[in-house]
Amino acid sequence: MTGPEIETLIGLMARLPGLGPRSARRIALRLLSEREQRLLPLIGALSVAAERVRVCSVCGGLDSRDPCAICGDPGREPMICVVESVADQWALERASIYRGRYHVLGGLLSAIGGRGPEQLGVPKLMARLDGSVREVILALPATVDGQSTAHYLTERIKSFAIPVTRLAQGVPVGGSIEILDEGTLALAMSARRAVPG
Amino acid sequence: MTGPEIETLIGLMARLPGLGPRSARRIALRLLSEREQRLLPLIGALSVAAERVRVCSVCGGLDSRDPCAICGDPGREPMICVVESVADQWALERASIYRGRYHVLGGLLSAIGGRGPEQLGVPKLMARLDGSVREVILALPATVDGQSTAHYLTERIKSFAIPVTRLAQGVPVGGSIEILDEGTLALAMSARRAVPG
Repeated sequence: MTGPEIETLIGLMARLPGLGPRSARRIALRLLSEREQRLLPLIGALSVAAERVRVCSVCGGLDSRDPCAICGDPGREPMICVVESVADQWALERASIYRGRYHVLGGLLSAIGGRGPEQLGVPKLMARLDGSVREVILALPATVDGQSTAHYLTERIKSFAIPVTRLAQGVPVGGSIEILDEGTLALAMSARRAVPG
Repeated sequence: MTGPEIETLIGLMARLPGLGPRSARRIALRLLSEREQRLLPLIGALSVAAERVRVCSVCGGLDSRDPCAICGDPGREPMICVVESVADQWALERASIYRGRYHVLGGLLSAIGGRGPEQLGVPKLMARLDGSVREVILALPATVDGQSTAHYLTERIKSFAIPVTRLAQGVPVGGSIEILDEGTLALAMSARRAVPG
């Protein structure tokens, strides 16, 4: 019904996260009908990003600079927050509650997936743990792989005598008790805190 | 937090239909982290589309050929289905219940919007109404502008002595009566049909 060029485009876009054939078609259509205002600028932005954005050789984040803006910022506190992905790093940056540095593993230890410490650049992380690092925060998912990765890293970091912490777990803000799983509830209960006053 | 290149990219994508800052960020991130497998192919497909896909000079559809594949297909029946947008044309093609030709208005008559018959290529449509055209189907939205456009076109086409039809209106398939607006219900009631047998 439509030309092969359009079908190819829709096919590629439909495989992007959160998109399907329907939404990809809508987007392709909008792009094609607003060639000058939308399609060409997008091609330009994608090309510039493809050309300039690289993985930071220090932390594994994404930026057009290497080291990235965060690694290169002297104002950042001497702590390293270990995350699974750049998405997690961005989420923490958006929350702007942390002013330290990051280390992006790019995955989690997984026996099934056969991902070992080397694939995750754990040696790279260890190499960053000089005297200046005050704390390592493990902001890893509360999944089996996430927790075993956290456990493994804790063991490895021990020898450096650097305090290791992990994000608190419990009832999410705005989370209703009713829909929470038993695991989270048990955890939130055992880690309950005294109400001041 | 991220480089200007990434922010520009996210900004452009966030303005695409169905996307927002959050989903655009996810997509940008996926593209940047899978440069070879996703980003470069997408840039390629977008560039090819930008270069080749044009508006069909006959029907106003989009294709890499001009006249488009549909206009150039001798197998299509000599009827013209008038639609507001290419999106509507594609929807009808997907339903594959119609094997005729199309005419894409690219909008609707609107006193407020100040869009007149010329902007909508109505003269172009009239020029297509030679003896061979057996029927003109008005597949226009059931909105005020849609209906006034349909009315205007019906008046214009009268002189050609070509039958003009419009899509049936009523209860959509799978539509529950409860949630339907009064207008649709009144229309579905007045246009009710005898149950055979």
